[in-house]
Amino acid sequence: MPNDDASSPASLPGRAPHILLSIAPHERDAIFPLKNMAALTGISGTLDTVTPGDVLEFGDLGDIDIVVVAWGFPALDRDLLGRMPRLRLVVNAASSVRRLVTDAFWAAGIPITQSGAAMAPAVAEMSLTLTLSLLRRTHRMDSALRHGVRWDSARAIPRAREIAGARIGVIGASRTGREYVRMCSSLGASVAIHDPYVGDGDPLSSLITPLDELLATSDIVAVHAPATPETHGMLGRHELALLRDGAGLVNTARSSLIDGEALYDEVSSGRIDAALDVFDAEPLPQDDRWRALPNALLTGHVSGATRESRQRAGAIVIDEITRFVAGEPLQHRVTRTDLERMG
Amino acid sequence: MPNDDASSPASLPGRAPHILLSIAPHERDAIFPLKNMAALTGISGTLDTVTPGDVLEFGDLGDIDIVVVAWGFPALDRDLLGRMPRLRLVVNAASSVRRLVTDAFWAAGIPITQSGAAMAPAVAEMSLTLTLSLLRRTHRMDSALRHGVRWDSARAIPRAREIAGARIGVIGASRTGREYVRMCSSLGASVAIHDPYVGDGDPLSSLITPLDELLATSDIVAVHAPATPETHGMLGRHELALLRDGAGLVNTARSSLIDGEALYDEVSSGRIDAALDVFDAEPLPQDDRWRALPNALLTGHVSGATRESRQRAGAIVIDEITRFVAGEPLQHRVTRTDLERMG
Repeated sequence: MPNDDASSPASLPGRAPHILLSIAPHERDAIFPLKNMAALTGISGTLDTVTPGDVLEFGDLGDIDIVVVAWGFPALDRDLLGRMPRLRLVVNAASSVRRLVTDAFWAAGIPITQSGAAMAPAVAEMSLTLTLSLLRRTHRMDSALRHGVRWDSARAIPRAREIAGARIGVIGASRTGREYVRMCSSLGASVAIHDPYVGDGDPLSSLITPLDELLATSDIVAVHAPATPETHGMLGRHELALLRDGAGLVNTARSSLIDGEALYDEVSSGRIDAALDVFDAEPLPQDDRWRALPNALLTGHVSGATRESRQRAGAIVIDEITRFVAGEPLQHRVTRTDLERMG
Repeated sequence: MPNDDASSPASLPGRAPHILLSIAPHERDAIFPLKNMAALTGISGTLDTVTPGDVLEFGDLGDIDIVVVAWGFPALDRDLLGRMPRLRLVVNAASSVRRLVTDAFWAAGIPITQSGAAMAPAVAEMSLTLTLSLLRRTHRMDSALRHGVRWDSARAIPRAREIAGARIGVIGASRTGREYVRMCSSLGASVAIHDPYVGDGDPLSSLITPLDELLATSDIVAVHAPATPETHGMLGRHELALLRDGAGLVNTARSSLIDGEALYDEVSSGRIDAALDVFDAEPLPQDDRWRALPNALLTGHVSGATRESRQRAGAIVIDEITRFVAGEPLQHRVTRTDLERMG
């Protein structure tokens, strides 16, 4: 993540910082297991903890220098910032900072960091897991056997494909997309990439393929682009119709990238299979129509949520605070300009 | 597969061979798509086809030089051999020849080949697919969402693990096991292997680990050993009890390697998860108790059955016949001695 040289981080007064840690206990313990929590305590002068839902009712925030957040923390608006006059740094242990920032926050010039780098390998592995599951149709066979379908009928599910030699189309050469490309390539897949921001000097430039061609020639298409106005609905009815019969679509990124109605039509007709970790409606309602399709593999927006990725996020948080206190440049800062291109 | 130098293949008279192709149509078309069928026709003098179930009622087999079989062909016993006095070669497009051979067949000295090499990459990929699915618990989450479980409850399934950095225990450094080791290692796993036949000069020798230690320290244990008297029940109640809480067991090899009752107890208690492609009872009965376990991922003995593996099997068949006709050594011959160590 590039730093914004226009406003270098204001450093702290010469004392250990007063840190507010506001992450739900379940995730807090995953991000800061014993070793990470010891490190966080070590760099704190005072360490207060509060669940994100209670922060607006929390007493005195006047001494807080740094807040450490993840999911569910309220937006940093004028009111909340007014209660934290000494706030010098916001460290997000989760990925996108979109729900945290406001005009007032950007105007205050307070640096904010995120930990998306911790999640990229986890999301890429999930995308690979779903890719292999669609190629091998394990999900459909398991579901059939589980529902009392006869052995021979379950085995008659269309012939499986191998990833070695398969054509994998990757939309978005993000950090996650690049990890996914590396994994698929190491397993012998032939990879095509669509990403308008990959330049000639990029090691992946030789894999760049026009979107229509990528869609029409891939066995599996995996989406790894950020959710921006530019990518909104980029896979619409026309694009999805280009997919081969029997192809699979994997989405571990954001549902806004795909026209949900068009995707539902293609999957429910049986023409293509899909593996989805993200949905237009989250939480996915209990009677949602996606839950009834035998050729859709569904997970609950957990691609980035491995044990290891949470610990990496904690390590990034500790590293960023340590740098900030030492007056060194932050490594995972997000500026307003960055945010326009990020998910 | 080592050739048996003791009985070099008897070659054919100087004319194109009369070949009997006896594979069920569905598999025949998968093994011999257009290109492969053209090649087979090209090397045949006469090519007869008969479904395996009808071979005993087939008219005159007296001219047959070579039979090409896969699944369901009857055992080559004295009666059947008596009807094929000119038989010089049996080419199995499937893997094990165990159900084909008899004492009479071995006594006749007719060479037999198999195409297990075609399947190894497919089985290894399936084992990887199941490994990743257990680590990420995609199967459990999909199954929960599909059965109307609330979003938050589905997401509360125990935290996923990544394969990068995971400990993978591999039982059996077979051709398939070696492919699987290569794939897991390329994704960053730490691999331990149990195989009494891996010697000091083997590139995998540094990964050899005592079985009990392997079981007690692995996140996933994958079985890739052959089904022999020596391996029968090698994972019994004692061995399975050594697995860590939350570990996963993957079996794409043979069910006889594992004590099925002990495995059922460990999985149904929820202590470990399992992904199984092979079962003590196949076809798996419609009311089989395995079908009801939420933490078991089931497939229908299809690990080797990819589109690509069937085509590779066809290519091996064609190559073996071509070699035989030219008087060159067979590459995939199985002798009686080989069979004792093979699955």
